[in-house]
Amino acid sequence: MKLIGIVILVLASFCCAQGSSDFHPAETNVWGADYPRIDDAGRVQLRVKAPDATTVKLNFWSGPKLDMEKQSDGFWTITTPPLVPGLHYYVFNIDGAEVSDTNSRDYFGGGKYTSMVEVPEPGSTYYSIQDVPHGQVREVWYNSKVTGTWRHAMVYLPPNYDTQVKVRYPVLYLQHGAGEDETGWIRQGHANFILDNLMATKSCKPMILVMAYGYARRAGQVPPDLTGKPFGSPEMMKAMQDMAAAFEDDVTQALIPYVDSTFRTIPDRDHRAMAGLSMGGMQTFQITLDHLDLFSYIGGFSGAGGMLVLGNRKLDAKTDYNGVFADPAAFAKKVHLLWLGVGTKEPERMRAGLLRLHDSLNEAHIQHVFYESPGTDHEWQTWRRDLKDFAPRLF
Amino acid sequence: MKLIGIVILVLASFCCAQGSSDFHPAETNVWGADYPRIDDAGRVQLRVKAPDATTVKLNFWSGPKLDMEKQSDGFWTITTPPLVPGLHYYVFNIDGAEVSDTNSRDYFGGGKYTSMVEVPEPGSTYYSIQDVPHGQVREVWYNSKVTGTWRHAMVYLPPNYDTQVKVRYPVLYLQHGAGEDETGWIRQGHANFILDNLMATKSCKPMILVMAYGYARRAGQVPPDLTGKPFGSPEMMKAMQDMAAAFEDDVTQALIPYVDSTFRTIPDRDHRAMAGLSMGGMQTFQITLDHLDLFSYIGGFSGAGGMLVLGNRKLDAKTDYNGVFADPAAFAKKVHLLWLGVGTKEPERMRAGLLRLHDSLNEAHIQHVFYESPGTDHEWQTWRRDLKDFAPRLF
Repeated sequence: MKLIGIVILVLASFCCAQGSSDFHPAETNVWGADYPRIDDAGRVQLRVKAPDATTVKLNFWSGPKLDMEKQSDGFWTITTPPLVPGLHYYVFNIDGAEVSDTNSRDYFGGGKYTSMVEVPEPGSTYYSIQDVPHGQVREVWYNSKVTGTWRHAMVYLPPNYDTQVKVRYPVLYLQHGAGEDETGWIRQGHANFILDNLMATKSCKPMILVMAYGYARRAGQVPPDLTGKPFGSPEMMKAMQDMAAAFEDDVTQALIPYVDSTFRTIPDRDHRAMAGLSMGGMQTFQITLDHLDLFSYIGGFSGAGGMLVLGNRKLDAKTDYNGVFADPAAFAKKVHLLWLGVGTKEPERMRAGLLRLHDSLNEAHIQHVFYESPGTDHEWQTWRRDLKDFAPRLF
Repeated sequence: MKLIGIVILVLASFCCAQGSSDFHPAETNVWGADYPRIDDAGRVQLRVKAPDATTVKLNFWSGPKLDMEKQSDGFWTITTPPLVPGLHYYVFNIDGAEVSDTNSRDYFGGGKYTSMVEVPEPGSTYYSIQDVPHGQVREVWYNSKVTGTWRHAMVYLPPNYDTQVKVRYPVLYLQHGAGEDETGWIRQGHANFILDNLMATKSCKPMILVMAYGYARRAGQVPPDLTGKPFGSPEMMKAMQDMAAAFEDDVTQALIPYVDSTFRTIPDRDHRAMAGLSMGGMQTFQITLDHLDLFSYIGGFSGAGGMLVLGNRKLDAKTDYNGVFADPAAFAKKVHLLWLGVGTKEPERMRAGLLRLHDSLNEAHIQHVFYESPGTDHEWQTWRRDLKDFAPRLF
């Protein structure tokens, strides 16, 4: 009977999905799921079956928190106010349990698999699949002596990589945010389609993207017990620094050598970039500025510098980051691009850090690009736009 | 505050995961999650936070359905009886809502993203990553004129594919089951590691795996309204046949030409195999036996023939499948391998179909391999074993 149930489900999915006149199924739905539905204003209708629940809430990670209404058929439903375009994390809270929506695809975010709904940006096609040559995304595993483990990474290779077997390519290392993983830039960000589309109009150079797992613990390192240690405590800062240092060594000692020996890269600093979002921006600053022998293009998407180095203070150009910002002329000669971006609708605390860094760099006469994404939050629509602006400036 | 919360989560995940003496976190957990935990007997401890719920149940797709117990801290907990080795789909039912476990990785199964827990098979390493040369898994998109859509597929290329640029390879098309998708054989099945390990001991030939999305609707086809049509009704059978026919055309007219023009295949029937599990086995039989000009190796894993052709009757060797079984000598000459497998613990209804086909083939004097996986259910452990037995017989 179980199999019969699944066959019916499959058929129902393919045969019966019908939208109302205004609302249509979101593109982030699993195949055939009628809900969530979206209208042209960006309003989202959601539903979840929870016949015996007392309260069901809808919580967007960055967006409204709403009480859902129980219907007589055991479903709880809601229609949201219009949401800004982009990909929004959300959960249902069913009698106190935070759960994902089985109608939506799950993405890794917030340290778990969670639902997202895509609200399309009217007229924007740069991050969706188009009828242009496509690169391929590869899953690779490399054996890291730094962590003592096999580590999984995603690698985007540009169109024609397989056929133009003499061509070598520059590499952009592109990192996810805290709570996300190496799949984020493909699944949530559509980095592959963004690059396909940019390359199709020759708006950016053909390049390889490498997306690594941004957490690391050194082989043999005993994890500290942080029970009862408050945020910002010396023990917690030490743990964060240990993780950041282990990841830095993994990137520079394991990942880059693996990539350069596995793919047809141009293995020098002039053809190697790194960028990351949020936590990934902080990692990018640390790793690239520690290793200007390896990198010459640097991008911080809604994150850069960050609490480990700067806390809430301004950059001290003379001493921070090994003093690389002390001599603007030398820095401009060495670093081909320093790029910062932030969404105008991000929480003030996040904007404040980026703006402070931007100001500090200006005061220190450090050339850099500062990009503000209009109307977008600390979410993937900001970072898709960042990549679209950043990639054409590379190599 | 949200970001701080995530940073704490990340750190906690890396720093504080501690097992009890007997139970340890499952390998299918998201990073750092303490639960589910498993002991050496295969018992699984699970927990979920649902402070305001009235009832919480644990339902394995194929396994126990159990009531969970509420603890004073708002968590509901349970320890299962010992489970057989393998990868088990499960959900929590929280006050009537079927939800996945945010502590476990999610996999696509049952038409949604759902939790699974891996119960290791003692002493078995054939389906886990080992220190051997690894193939790469590529994600590709092909434009199907049959469906009028971009379709996503997974392609495994063997170790050294990139460096031995003159070598061409045979191809195994490998299909998922109903409710699963093209990611199943990698995520759930570990087909890439199985082949890596087999190749490392020269137990199977180097080959390419292609894993397609097993659902299709013909371009422009209007989906029928199946509302109120019972299972097995003429309308539903017609819908299933339409989907099967569209998928058959997609494989033969879009996918195979794409694969043969994109990868270094040996593009002939002697070097092309197809196998699938459950629904994928049914599809394999239909597609390969309709196209013996394209395929010469055939595998049915816990599924073959199936309701669309055979329903609950025996095979009629003279007439079924265009009469390909009518002449055993001709069939044996044409088809290098016909392989059937089923787990001994699968539901009787599923075993019955396979056993009936096996008997029918014997009566018709059709050479074939029949493999029974000891102690395993209609689940991935059966299909991993199937692939381990099947692949070495190919090419």
